[in-house]
Amino acid sequence: MNQGRKPQILITNDDSISAGGIAALIEAARPFGDLLVVAPDKPQSGMGHAITIHDPIRLAKSHLYSGVEAYACSGTPVDCVKLGIYELLGAKPDLILSGINHGENSSTNVLYSGTMSAAIEGAMEGVASFGFSLADFSANADFSAAQFYVNYLLEQYFQKGFAPSICLNVNVPKLPLSEIKGLRFCKQAHAYWADRFEKRSDQFGRDYFWLTGEFADLDQRPDTDLHALKEGYVSVVPTQYDLTAYAHLTQFKSWES
Amino acid sequence: MNQGRKPQILITNDDSISAGGIAALIEAARPFGDLLVVAPDKPQSGMGHAITIHDPIRLAKSHLYSGVEAYACSGTPVDCVKLGIYELLGAKPDLILSGINHGENSSTNVLYSGTMSAAIEGAMEGVASFGFSLADFSANADFSAAQFYVNYLLEQYFQKGFAPSICLNVNVPKLPLSEIKGLRFCKQAHAYWADRFEKRSDQFGRDYFWLTGEFADLDQRPDTDLHALKEGYVSVVPTQYDLTAYAHLTQFKSWES
Repeated sequence: MNQGRKPQILITNDDSISAGGIAALIEAARPFGDLLVVAPDKPQSGMGHAITIHDPIRLAKSHLYSGVEAYACSGTPVDCVKLGIYELLGAKPDLILSGINHGENSSTNVLYSGTMSAAIEGAMEGVASFGFSLADFSANADFSAAQFYVNYLLEQYFQKGFAPSICLNVNVPKLPLSEIKGLRFCKQAHAYWADRFEKRSDQFGRDYFWLTGEFADLDQRPDTDLHALKEGYVSVVPTQYDLTAYAHLTQFKSWES
Repeated sequence: MNQGRKPQILITNDDSISAGGIAALIEAARPFGDLLVVAPDKPQSGMGHAITIHDPIRLAKSHLYSGVEAYACSGTPVDCVKLGIYELLGAKPDLILSGINHGENSSTNVLYSGTMSAAIEGAMEGVASFGFSLADFSANADFSAAQFYVNYLLEQYFQKGFAPSICLNVNVPKLPLSEIKGLRFCKQAHAYWADRFEKRSDQFGRDYFWLTGEFADLDQRPDTDLHALKEGYVSVVPTQYDLTAYAHLTQFKSWES
């Protein structure tokens, strides 16, 4: 960071600019720097790392957050990060914060999550980034415990820092602050969705399918994010964008031609 | 795989069911098993690991590929994999093949790519999966060299196998088969898009933004996929869905509370 000016913080989410979670994040982040909010103009949950290639994107100035420059964006969370950096700031911010998501983004949900994909995009841009999620899908969830941990983690960050090639996936359990046991750094659990689809017929007799399913936690290791959350801790997974399966790389030598 | 029956192979892509690349993949994969094609009904490039949560999904039987059961799906590439497994097959296939993409999916493009996200979803389901891409965006690209390597890699796979928790990201350079030097297993390069946006005004005087940009290859290591492609090799990156930055995990001990 440059000395002599406040840190520039870019804020986004995937639940849309009018969600309670981003309002809570803005409130918690205000003391730490100059905020620029660029967030989707409609819910974008489950958009993963999607970007808008084939269509134009719109930006509309928003007056939702008093004293904070904010834009509603017609694109995905990753589009919001790119537009924030390359169009609005014209420079990399000091920090990117995404969330607070209405719903948990632990385990393999990191791949489906628009919230976390925005943070991963930040890491790809070389900007230290955080994705925050609360394990409560409700529209009027209580974000006060999550705000406490936003504040705590930003204080840690500004004291200690971390490599800007990673981001932190922060999940807060659905508990009052007084019942949260603390904060643990963890591995991503290898759980997955045992998906099924609701199959119904519409009013014209044509079938449609709607995704549903249950989260199957077959990963019983004690040092995962899912385990920490179950035990009542805030889980934090340092997250990278290099998907190379290094442990498997040498076994393929005999496949080369 | 069960003995005494042909392998069940699920095929998808992100360029849509009518793209030349999936036709080429179907042709190359036919000798290896029973094919089920579930592919998007419209282009879905750049959709990453997006899933359709808030809307119903449609499936329409397709007669594009003689003798092959095929469905056009209104959802994303990852939706196609989920519907193929949970709705159409009712069981995990032996193999998932995605592509052949019109355009390269090397380096960090793996995160934006619908083609590769379908293969990663396969790995999350515990099914050995391949994503194939040709470094040629043209609609009438020549897929014959890519088909040669689909055939070669499937032969290797059925002889040797690999852990179903990973998938292979295969990129074929835009060269005639005779000029391709061979096939190399590589790391994902840490390149990124130096994005910018075309900003224009529409007929009503309102601004719109359109993503453009240049691929910045700042990763000069010799064992990356980008390097292999530049040298004229087919690149293959074993790819995993665990994004934990293990090398960074211990440094955060003092952040715990």
